[in-house]
Amino acid sequence: MERIEKLVVVGVGLVGGSFALALKGAGAVGRVIGVGRGARNIRRALELKIIDAGGALDEATFADADLVLLAVPLGQMRAVMRSIAPHLGAKTVVTDAGSTKEGVVALARRALKGALSRFVPGHPVAGTEKSGADAAFAGLYRGRRVVLTPLEATEPEALALVRAAWERCGAGVFELRPREHDAVMASVSHLPHVLAYALVDQVARHKNAQQLFSYAAGGFRDFTRIAASHPEMWRDICLANKKALLAELVRYGGKLERVKRMLERGDARALHALFSGAREARDRWLKDT
Amino acid sequence: MERIEKLVVVGVGLVGGSFALALKGAGAVGRVIGVGRGARNIRRALELKIIDAGGALDEATFADADLVLLAVPLGQMRAVMRSIAPHLGAKTVVTDAGSTKEGVVALARRALKGALSRFVPGHPVAGTEKSGADAAFAGLYRGRRVVLTPLEATEPEALALVRAAWERCGAGVFELRPREHDAVMASVSHLPHVLAYALVDQVARHKNAQQLFSYAAGGFRDFTRIAASHPEMWRDICLANKKALLAELVRYGGKLERVKRMLERGDARALHALFSGAREARDRWLKDT
Repeated sequence: MERIEKLVVVGVGLVGGSFALALKGAGAVGRVIGVGRGARNIRRALELKIIDAGGALDEATFADADLVLLAVPLGQMRAVMRSIAPHLGAKTVVTDAGSTKEGVVALARRALKGALSRFVPGHPVAGTEKSGADAAFAGLYRGRRVVLTPLEATEPEALALVRAAWERCGAGVFELRPREHDAVMASVSHLPHVLAYALVDQVARHKNAQQLFSYAAGGFRDFTRIAASHPEMWRDICLANKKALLAELVRYGGKLERVKRMLERGDARALHALFSGAREARDRWLKDT
Repeated sequence: MERIEKLVVVGVGLVGGSFALALKGAGAVGRVIGVGRGARNIRRALELKIIDAGGALDEATFADADLVLLAVPLGQMRAVMRSIAPHLGAKTVVTDAGSTKEGVVALARRALKGALSRFVPGHPVAGTEKSGADAAFAGLYRGRRVVLTPLEATEPEALALVRAAWERCGAGVFELRPREHDAVMASVSHLPHVLAYALVDQVARHKNAQQLFSYAAGGFRDFTRIAASHPEMWRDICLANKKALLAELVRYGGKLERVKRMLERGDARALHALFSGAREARDRWLKDT
């Protein structure tokens, strides 16, 4: 990989900050410029040496950038793309870290214009429930997967640069079509997040919520860990991936109906089959990873 | 607390084994006798010094026992109670670790006869997804809650002995009515287990299950950790607490319906309110514990 002389990270939170730290750690990057809505977070990113300077949505920041990572909530993606499009240099490669890809691709087609061929849609499948520059760490992507969903128009050199950058972060890079990516994520990420938020909400709205929480133990804590995730980010993800998520929710509702019927008729055998099948599938998964 | 000269643990798994180890560690117990279906597990418990000897469902094992802990799956509780009832000594106190209490109390009323006044129904609200003697450890109950649901007929001395034993394990002991206990557990434990098993099942039955699992990350792993729990134990819990669990499932189904409608109409504000409310409730809970 050519060294990235100038990296611009828009949104220096867990995802963007960890990308910068990982590339710095690998000696793969020169200067890192951070751009963000929150002045306090940018100051914090400077203190933590995640970025070398703060920038703005202007020509000075973007015209000579080798690589730009857009790591903002999906709801801000459109505005950010429109703001940076006129300022991008002729060689600037742009990628994003959005958790859904069909919507981002559609936005990019409209907003990035001439720069579209140097846009490489991406999604690092890694994260924690924490957010902000303070949460960033260089090892976030080590051993994790990054999905790229290049367009027919994507320049091979742009794709190669982004792929190499993620590999320097320690990630394995895979390519999927945008729609395929979104369906996969609806199933193994977006649905579980909704289920966790919904469960906490259900307990919190019980008239004896305090008593209930007082008896919640480690299983509840782990099950609901993802309900500590960034509400704005997850609102945007759910709306951006509405169709695939709704399909998974409908499927899940049907499954719960079947569980209800098993309980109602006291079907010990069916419950055992469900539980032991699920346990075995999960064990196989963990063995394979 | 009087020292427990002879403790009998029926079911030397995570729960029963950890109770024995904790009491041994606290110097609160003399001999520990283990009784179980699986000869291999009992051998393992001996090797690990969780128990000092293996016993059987007979007079020699139970007649001179000070305390008996029944830590078997709920489905075996009836048979175990009927087997030991004729062998219990006049001073033997019996407690259990069953995850539901109404059903256990009903069984005890029928099976324990004269020993009912020395039966103290209990439930240590602690556990991991692991099972068997190998999973046991002395610290399992430290800082955790144990619920006791004494009957009107329970002798105060029996209650005091069981309470003291759990306190020596490092647990905080609380008293609830059986029905109240079961409603609490349906909400914060039994429902999440069912939801986790159902989600893994849903992913595993997708036609592209392998691809889906390959993109599942840390959030999915934690969310589904409880789906690695003992299927037989959880089948029994769900059936024993069917009524309260069904009520929670119906309520949760309604909540998912409301989430679906929020998605369908693209209601960003409602989704954000749900997600941020849940995050705040969870944060408050963790701060309080």
